[in-house]
Amino acid sequence: MVTVGIDVGSMTAKAVLLTGEIRQSLIRPTGCSPRQAGRDIFEELLNISGFSQSDINYVVGTGYGRVSLDFIDRAITEITCHAKGANYLVSGADMVIDIGGQDSKVIITDGRGNVNDFAMNDKCAAGTGRFLQVMATALESDISELAELSKGADPVEISNMCTVFAESEVVSLLAQGVAKERIIAGIHLSVARRVAAMTGRVGKGNLVVFTGGVARNEGVKGFLSRELSREIIVLPESQLAGALGAALLAQERLRG
Amino acid sequence: MVTVGIDVGSMTAKAVLLTGEIRQSLIRPTGCSPRQAGRDIFEELLNISGFSQSDINYVVGTGYGRVSLDFIDRAITEITCHAKGANYLVSGADMVIDIGGQDSKVIITDGRGNVNDFAMNDKCAAGTGRFLQVMATALESDISELAELSKGADPVEISNMCTVFAESEVVSLLAQGVAKERIIAGIHLSVARRVAAMTGRVGKGNLVVFTGGVARNEGVKGFLSRELSREIIVLPESQLAGALGAALLAQERLRG
Ligand code: SF4
Repeated sequence: MVTVGIDVGSMTAKAVLLTGEIRQSLIRPTGCSPRQAGRDIFEELLNISGFSQSDINYVVGTGYGRVSLDFIDRAITEITCHAKGANYLVSGADMVIDIGGQDSKVIITDGRGNVNDFAMNDKCAAGTGRFLQVMATALESDISELAELSKGADPVEISNMCTVFAESEVVSLLAQGVAKERIIAGIHLSVARRVAAMTGRVGKGNLVVFTGGVARNEGVKGFLSRELSREIIVLPESQLAGALGAALLAQERLRG
Repeated sequence: MVTVGIDVGSMTAKAVLLTGEIRQSLIRPTGCSPRQAGRDIFEELLNISGFSQSDINYVVGTGYGRVSLDFIDRAITEITCHAKGANYLVSGADMVIDIGGQDSKVIITDGRGNVNDFAMNDKCAAGTGRFLQVMATALESDISELAELSKGADPVEISNMCTVFAESEVVSLLAQGVAKERIIAGIHLSVARRVAAMTGRVGKGNLVVFTGGVARNEGVKGFLSRELSREIIVLPESQLAGALGAALLAQERLRG
């Protein structure tokens, strides 16, 4: 039984080929066409894994770009896929925090990969990767180096939650001579607080998996752990959770 | 009885000298120090009106910078001052919509200048002058020419409410070849909708005065009128409503 999960997010497309185990996975930039990104990553996945399209028994698409994929057997929301994938990566995980390029989600599961409740923000750039991107630009840094630059720094208080107002605040903190690493730490804390606040309605789990592009940022991870008073697990495969969940759900479909 | 009202907003400082009637008024950019802007505009007001500081019986400060003014007799919130000032400008006005550089307010009054209820947004840049500023920059236009550029244009739908996401949307609409005037009209509609939504909790009045820097934008005014199904009054003195209200409240103080 060979299945594929394709997760087309706003920034990156992810693909997983599953044959009982993870046989192949890919992460590629989405670019300006989610449709094309989905096609391309599927083709590349087949090429490098040596399978042909007819070998694949079922393809599930997820992520915000899933609606534009015409080669998939089924589209499933990223909430469902993330819960499933995170549970596969960390058995017993009952809370998934996903912070992507332009949204963030808190998912509470039953510890077996099924969704109990969730909170999602895709309307406001605060608390998403976009917030980090805007701040990185203001600081003339690359988003990928923010965590390293601010390691161990004492966070300065960023009082504005809004990305636009916080950007002006950051520029003015810089002008006041506040150390860049303290500003970056403050930015990470701001993201962590905003996302931690989302647990207010849905509650917290005990075993937390952190996924999405922002999960690679150690600074955000650290503050999130502090704000939630929970240990937080990030695995190398964390970014694949959605695509992996999609491929797992494809297997469930086939089994009936 | 000579009183002065000083309204230090995020973008501009306003001052009114009142002797029964409006004797002198000024609008100046706030710059980076609200404290200095308040001092400077007060001094300039005295200079050009020929009064000395000892001639002034009472000074009321308002606006977000009011807390940093040390020469005033009293600070009063801009909600109270705006209601009072708008009612002086338009007798019987029972609704004041104020859209400033970084906040927006809807104030419902008793028609005699006293506040019944209000809604305020100073947390999110959407629906404020800041939204217009970000979009003007993205369109490489000056904020002051937006209304003229989009006169009579059919607004394109801007689906993102968030300033950050809407900015990307505007850039991509431009790239798709959508006419700039239609995009600008869409931007004006977005601000009008966001502010009109604030009336949900507090209700609407019948006689509406539109104040604040954004009131000079005919496009926003037109869409606001459409969204609220109300005629909307903008006077040349609209931007002075807060400072005027402050000077009027100073007179009330003196009277007892
Ligand atoms: S608060 Fe700021 S970042 Fe959030 S929706 Fe409003 S404009 Fe966007």
